[in-house]
Amino acid sequence: MVEQAIYQHAKQWAFEAGEILRQAVKGELTVEYKTSAADLVTEKDKEIEQFFLDKINTHYPEHFLLGEEGVQQQQTYQPEDEIVWLVDPIDGTTNFVHTKSNFSISVAVYIKGKPTVGVIYDPIKDEMFHVLAGQGLYVDEEKVPAVATNKQMEEALFCLNHLWLAPNDDLNEQPLQQMVREIRGFRCIGSAALELAYVATGRMDGAIYNGLGAWDFGAAYVMLKEQGIACTTLKGEEVYPFGHATLITASKKLHQQVLANYIELKH
Amino acid sequence: MVEQAIYQHAKQWAFEAGEILRQAVKGELTVEYKTSAADLVTEKDKEIEQFFLDKINTHYPEHFLLGEEGVQQQQTYQPEDEIVWLVDPIDGTTNFVHTKSNFSISVAVYIKGKPTVGVIYDPIKDEMFHVLAGQGLYVDEEKVPAVATNKQMEEALFCLNHLWLAPNDDLNEQPLQQMVREIRGFRCIGSAALELAYVATGRMDGAIYNGLGAWDFGAAYVMLKEQGIACTTLKGEEVYPFGHATLITASKKLHQQVLANYIELKH
Repeated sequence: MVEQAIYQHAKQWAFEAGEILRQAVKGELTVEYKTSAADLVTEKDKEIEQFFLDKINTHYPEHFLLGEEGVQQQQTYQPEDEIVWLVDPIDGTTNFVHTKSNFSISVAVYIKGKPTVGVIYDPIKDEMFHVLAGQGLYVDEEKVPAVATNKQMEEALFCLNHLWLAPNDDLNEQPLQQMVREIRGFRCIGSAALELAYVATGRMDGAIYNGLGAWDFGAAYVMLKEQGIACTTLKGEEVYPFGHATLITASKKLHQQVLANYIELKH
Repeated sequence: MVEQAIYQHAKQWAFEAGEILRQAVKGELTVEYKTSAADLVTEKDKEIEQFFLDKINTHYPEHFLLGEEGVQQQQTYQPEDEIVWLVDPIDGTTNFVHTKSNFSISVAVYIKGKPTVGVIYDPIKDEMFHVLAGQGLYVDEEKVPAVATNKQMEEALFCLNHLWLAPNDDLNEQPLQQMVREIRGFRCIGSAALELAYVATGRMDGAIYNGLGAWDFGAAYVMLKEQGIACTTLKGEEVYPFGHATLITASKKLHQQVLANYIELKH
């Protein structure tokens, strides 16, 4: 079964990439700036995307790679008609450079538009979240049970970037400030892929993002769907997995409640 | 040398307590509520404080223990005249229960008021931060170099609870909202001890807290002093290590800059 082979490769390559990153955080990191001081990109980021491209070209020359660094030659294709790998070589590059923990490698495979494989690997904790659609979500060798669906706001832990509590162009900050006072707590770990993997495993109860690339949420999206956890854009619409997207995820009741009461888009 | 013996015991007991917690996160957690839904206390929290009390009573019957759970009999003493252990059995209880990572055991020893020993242990990452004053700060076996002192705001990563970006009784939120836009990023990991250990090791550049118990920051305070990192109350005053305190820490220049421009206490 081709899905099984792809699944095994995705896990194996994520682990091998993780080994590169584990070694890297012990050494010097050469950093260059991309669009802003908050958006660091390291040599390793590019190196690992190239690593995946080489692997995919060798084993699956007919597949496509959609990655943050865009190391692949530009080609026109319809992702819905192809097998597409979504790879974020280092999700949480600021953490990678600064805190040297809480970053991850995110690898997803979509077969003709169908979310099929998701792998998120935390190389520092040596913890791998992985799913083959329909076969269950795992952390390492352990199958993850269904998450609680009856959480109340005051019991809930959500991930949110602090930015959205300050005045900004995209989201009204007041409702989210109200949410701060009503939930158990917010966290900002700094790797969306890891935060979303935590939601999929029930360690966190939800997460809100104003803008993610397909490579950031691609793998987590397969996990969330597998777990039956609601995941939509901030407009409440279905997520298009091959583009930039806003995102809100939580169990169905909480998702509806937060979307209705605390999310106000300005446009 | 008594300090050396205490230092070794602090590390050993923190590790043993960590082993209890590692096992616990794999099993069921029995949770009770303390003062609020956000303030979880678990059986393990009490069990580990008792573990430390027993160890201290056995090896150092003349020492005192100041802990969050207050399992020790109430006695009147002047901490400045005694040897006092400050123990937080689980710093980050919400993380302990929810995310099952990013919590820590914090152990400090103050000898006649002098910050002497600090140990912060992350049992999930199996990572121990430890210091004997004057002998250097270590992560596991590795000595931590001095942290950068020339960081600019736009390069800085600070820890802050999302609460302080919403209207509240203690801190004006607008200056901190401005800070969100000017620094590289905020994080909220959810264990003050770990966050402060990250500042002491240069993984984070600063942290701001409106209220911590002595057991929360006791160990980190020894580390920050060892590293020459500024650490004061939000009024810019010296921290009293045996009580509840507000806290801001960062390298000297950043500390001054943030305190002057972004911290406005309401009373």
